[in-house]
Amino acid sequence: MADPDKSLIESGSEIERTVFFSDAVFAIAITLLAFDIRVPDIVPGAGGDQLRHALVELLPKLYSFLISFWIIGMYWLAHHRIFHFIKGYDRRLLVINFFFLMWIVLIPFSASLLGEYGSYQLALIIYFSHMILASLSLVWVWWYAYTDRRLVDPDLDPAVIRYNNARLLNLPIVFLIAIVISFFNLSAAGYSVLLLFFLRPITLWFARRRTA
Amino acid sequence: MADPDKSLIESGSEIERTVFFSDAVFAIAITLLAFDIRVPDIVPGAGGDQLRHALVELLPKLYSFLISFWIIGMYWLAHHRIFHFIKGYDRRLLVINFFFLMWIVLIPFSASLLGEYGSYQLALIIYFSHMILASLSLVWVWWYAYTDRRLVDPDLDPAVIRYNNARLLNLPIVFLIAIVISFFNLSAAGYSVLLLFFLRPITLWFARRRTA
Amino acid sequence: MADPDKSLIESGSEIERTVFFSDAVFAIAITLLAFDIRVPDIVPGAGGDQLRHALVELLPKLYSFLISFWIIGMYWLAHHRIFHFIKGYDRRLLVINFFFLMWIVLIPFSASLLGEYGSYQLALIIYFSHMILASLSLVWVWWYAYTDRRLVDPDLDPAVIRYNNARLLNLPIVFLIAIVISFFNLSAAGYSVLLLFFLRPITLWFARRRTA
Amino acid sequence: MADPDKSLIESGSEIERTVFFSDAVFAIAITLLAFDIRVPDIVPGAGGDQLRHALVELLPKLYSFLISFWIIGMYWLAHHRIFHFIKGYDRRLLVINFFFLMWIVLIPFSASLLGEYGSYQLALIIYFSHMILASLSLVWVWWYAYTDRRLVDPDLDPAVIRYNNARLLNLPIVFLIAIVISFFNLSAAGYSVLLLFFLRPITLWFARRRTA
Repeated sequence: MADPDKSLIESGSEIERTVFFSDAVFAIAITLLAFDIRVPDIVPGAGGDQLRHALVELLPKLYSFLISFWIIGMYWLAHHRIFHFIKGYDRRLLVINFFFLMWIVLIPFSASLLGEYGSYQLALIIYFSHMILASLSLVWVWWYAYTDRRLVDPDLDPAVIRYNNARLLNLPIVFLIAIVISFFNLSAAGYSVLLLFFLRPITLWFARRRTA
Repeated sequence: MADPDKSLIESGSEIERTVFFSDAVFAIAITLLAFDIRVPDIVPGAGGDQLRHALVELLPKLYSFLISFWIIGMYWLAHHRIFHFIKGYDRRLLVINFFFLMWIVLIPFSASLLGEYGSYQLALIIYFSHMILASLSLVWVWWYAYTDRRLVDPDLDPAVIRYNNARLLNLPIVFLIAIVISFFNLSAAGYSVLLLFFLRPITLWFARRRTA
Repeated sequence: MADPDKSLIESGSEIERTVFFSDAVFAIAITLLAFDIRVPDIVPGAGGDQLRHALVELLPKLYSFLISFWIIGMYWLAHHRIFHFIKGYDRRLLVINFFFLMWIVLIPFSASLLGEYGSYQLALIIYFSHMILASLSLVWVWWYAYTDRRLVDPDLDPAVIRYNNARLLNLPIVFLIAIVISFFNLSAAGYSVLLLFFLRPITLWFARRRTA
Repeated sequence: MADPDKSLIESGSEIERTVFFSDAVFAIAITLLAFDIRVPDIVPGAGGDQLRHALVELLPKLYSFLISFWIIGMYWLAHHRIFHFIKGYDRRLLVINFFFLMWIVLIPFSASLLGEYGSYQLALIIYFSHMILASLSLVWVWWYAYTDRRLVDPDLDPAVIRYNNARLLNLPIVFLIAIVISFFNLSAAGYSVLLLFFLRPITLWFARRRTA
């Protein structure tokens, strides 16, 4: 009698398909992000000034695109980083990864909301909360994979785990700070995410100190 | 003289390209799903209340997105599960798989219909019938591959086949139930698909009992 | 002194990236095809009859979708079939393949034209001419690869080449016939493409007779 | 004590995922390019003349599509060419490549701008500047990879490096010329990019002379 439990496990070591699928989702999400910046309509035969004026009005959308593009870039880099260490999959990993991808495919919506209504606190809070949920989902993927060395190399260096944890947890913390700031000043909240791009050196410094 | 029949067979063991192509289709379909939730237009300079109100009105579309996202997720997991066992392809498999993908690319349409006209029984029936057809196409892919062990390992454990059959057949049954319910109560029909997410433990229990 | 000609050849045996890229283009094109069928707008609070009526009016678009989906499917199968035999690439192959992909990415446009203006001969002629150009581009890819056994196995069976030629040349012939028919009867021209789906058995019969 | 610096390097030799991700972005960008050519609306029941007229009005958009499609094609070929020699990755390469992809996902926007407002110098300047930035980003990717043979074969033939540099630098030069021309004649500027398609033989000639 075959062991049904074993044959029904739905796990394996061919993690490539999942990685590939995730990449396709990332790629489409960032491309649709840009697709949302629509060329403005101007009166036919109007002067170049009017076109310039119409393009200047797209700047908030462009800012929202840039921020969102690089945030997705960070998620992709983080996904790349942790899947570098994940050597197998089981059904639960696939589902958690799918949960993470759900937030990725929704980013063009929140980015569009931010681009259009960035002067409303509500839009900022939705955007940043969305990013917190996305970040925590990726933390979950990583946490699920490394706990009990479930899907990683049994000899994986604990420094790698700590470093990845630190890097992943940076993101929700910055977004939480941005939400807090939004109660005082909306523009400052919008720009506070630029902090994200300076976090790596700090984290590296901490990671090194802790293992020293 | 070369045997034309043999050289014209159009089959092989490199199933990766098909799997890859299917994944790309899945990825685009789920991303377009989200792209359909458009940021609402509000009067320029209106208060935050109006934005909140406009966003609340998006909730039915969000519900439709969530349901459809996870249904596509289930199809992807099921596709992943059965192609784990499929070791080769022939022309017919490719065509049947393409037939299945046709339903996948149409899901953003039906999801959009459900999101906009979920209070009409017609929209619900179209949506659930669509899902039944998609499910049965995937059953067909699997059935075609395992019959006579055509494209699977000749020693494939019958428990695996039975388990996959049970899992695949769950989906059309739930959708059929939802259609029946829609004749009595539309909201209940809309929520009945949540049943899908509790089917796995039940199926596993049956699969184990049957092989015990 | 290194031989510049050799180092500048831009060729190799890793054809996977090209195949992969082509697949992504195919996948996006068929998904956008479906994305063009937009849910109709009906008066809020209208009865179910009006929704049914609005959906019936989508039928020409659905027909155009179905035809175009399966035509792209045929191109994908044909691409799959010939790249099964192509074992390397050079710059020219990449460019010709790109030329072929240009027609693929334009299919959603022509399909949309056919769906909206299928009662105009002009739309039919554009659609079928487009398909002829796409087919001939794929013939070109194949012809370029097998001539002088440039990028295929030097021992490739001539029956394989003839069979693929026959299959590939079927497509432009059917589309040409459809254009001719369109001068007499538009509906008949629209339905004549259904012929495509019966060509394989005929071609196989010929291929076998010729090699017998 | 594990060496944190070593475990935190975020580098490796599996460059495939990055190549794959880039390809998906390329594929979506060229397909969305075509998606921007929308079927025109004509009065229901109007004659075939009106449809012809409406289609003729799409020609500037079609020209913009064709130019942009082949420019993206060139970028893809160049990316393919240089990643043929890149044998590993580190975090910085991924970020620079992402920077390059940012310009790729924005191309449908600039192409749309050119298609709609090609008679305004501003649109031309934005388009060509965009292409210069994209080209220089790709130069950066290549330059970063080959400097100190960081991510290429240590024995890589210098002729390959020079040839790739020459090919890559062609692009920004042509776009710069087009900008200069746009101050004198807008149509000439628009057509000057056709020069791009004749650059390869010239570059090859130079590359050969220099290594002779």
